[in-house]
Amino acid sequence: MTYCVAMRLASGLVFVSDSRTNAGVDHISTFRKLHIFQQSAERVLVLQSAGNLATTQSIISLLTRRAQDPEQRNLMNVHSLYDAATLLGETVREVIARDGGANQGGVTDFSCSLLLGGQINGEEMRLFQIYAEGNFIEATHDTPYFQVGESKYGKPIIDRVLTYDTPLEQAMQCALISMDSTLRSNLSVGLPLDALIYPKESFSVAQQYRITEQHPYFATIRKGWGEGLLNTFSHLPPLALAPDAPH
Amino acid sequence: MTYCVAMRLASGLVFVSDSRTNAGVDHISTFRKLHIFQQSAERVLVLQSAGNLATTQSIISLLTRRAQDPEQRNLMNVHSLYDAATLLGETVREVIARDGGANQGGVTDFSCSLLLGGQINGEEMRLFQIYAEGNFIEATHDTPYFQVGESKYGKPIIDRVLTYDTPLEQAMQCALISMDSTLRSNLSVGLPLDALIYPKESFSVAQQYRITEQHPYFATIRKGWGEGLLNTFSHLPPLALAPDAPH
Repeated sequence: MTYCVAMRLASGLVFVSDSRTNAGVDHISTFRKLHIFQQSAERVLVLQSAGNLATTQSIISLLTRRAQDPEQRNLMNVHSLYDAATLLGETVREVIARDGGANQGGVTDFSCSLLLGGQINGEEMRLFQIYAEGNFIEATHDTPYFQVGESKYGKPIIDRVLTYDTPLEQAMQCALISMDSTLRSNLSVGLPLDALIYPKESFSVAQQYRITEQHPYFATIRKGWGEGLLNTFSHLPPLALAPDAPH
Repeated sequence: MTYCVAMRLASGLVFVSDSRTNAGVDHISTFRKLHIFQQSAERVLVLQSAGNLATTQSIISLLTRRAQDPEQRNLMNVHSLYDAATLLGETVREVIARDGGANQGGVTDFSCSLLLGGQINGEEMRLFQIYAEGNFIEATHDTPYFQVGESKYGKPIIDRVLTYDTPLEQAMQCALISMDSTLRSNLSVGLPLDALIYPKESFSVAQQYRITEQHPYFATIRKGWGEGLLNTFSHLPPLALAPDAPH
């Protein structure tokens, strides 16, 4: 499985992906799930993928190859993020139709989910979630983040902490803690993490990080968060349920 | 959907269930999902259910009716928790075969998951999770808890806090916080909660509670937990990813 989270906030975008893929517990590998299409000072598109690895790799391969051909509509020449999301949706349908069409009566799930965030000069930053059917939704002020893959373990902390106005550094902390909760409870999500902070209007992907088990900052916040939770837990008021008890 | 959690610990058993059921978001109701079969000083069996409401209600109805007939094998006369789990499995298969057999080509999911915990005089406390197929697994020293329904949101806090030796009151606090995380992130899980603490060898269900939105203790720990998390979050060391950044 996979866990990817992306946030579109007032001051920029935040992306974090794990890198574990598995086909059963006996075939576990590391693959990058965060992909960047960039043209300096003009566009930054960040793509995250979850789901069938053959499907998502083919999608990325096709998008990458086509991005080098200026004759055709591609991620490097579309005029808006909306058009990029539409193109992604078409590519998702193309690959799933190609590979899933000959399913030969099997039960393989060829589906995938994608996140696409970024900025193209002349428009605001935007963030989309693209479904296996090729349709998509866009993040808003009220719902400033999307998750794909094993999203449930890490959702409560985001729901508690994140708003549209959360500063980028805090949002990244929140995303890393959300990832930590997921890593602890689900073996199919694994380190290293790929992380990226995109400050609004920067058209830069300089703030890009690979976070391994040994990363000192990640180790520090995992420890700090774990200790803080246990400390909070141990200071809760003692259980007082008796008054309401129906016998 | 539903969220139920049950724990089998050194000093007793802890159960918490929500009470929301839904068939689509436009048909939401409140149903008790925690059921007790008790004979004083002799047996306490606690059953929690998630899944198709028609299936789980039929299972409870059949178990309850049969428990009144001493001529047949039932939850009130089986000699061990293991036999009770086997009986539950048979009843699950019976109901799903009856109702699901005539599915008429539809896509209805008739399945359910059950938790069964308790104690029968002469044996230790035991806790089982029964699948829709009627087979089951048992909680152990290493894995002292089971969840059914929307289990992922509330799993990280249990994984951090709970061990086999956690005292019952703290275990109940942990279960309530796990429930709170789930309530916040998933609309299909809702108050009131049904909760029960069973102290080892007590054969008593006196510590049984219904927890509504207005319950003062639940409100206190929800608030304390939420504030503690935000406080922990706001005191994390500032983001320091730069040293590892590959550009």
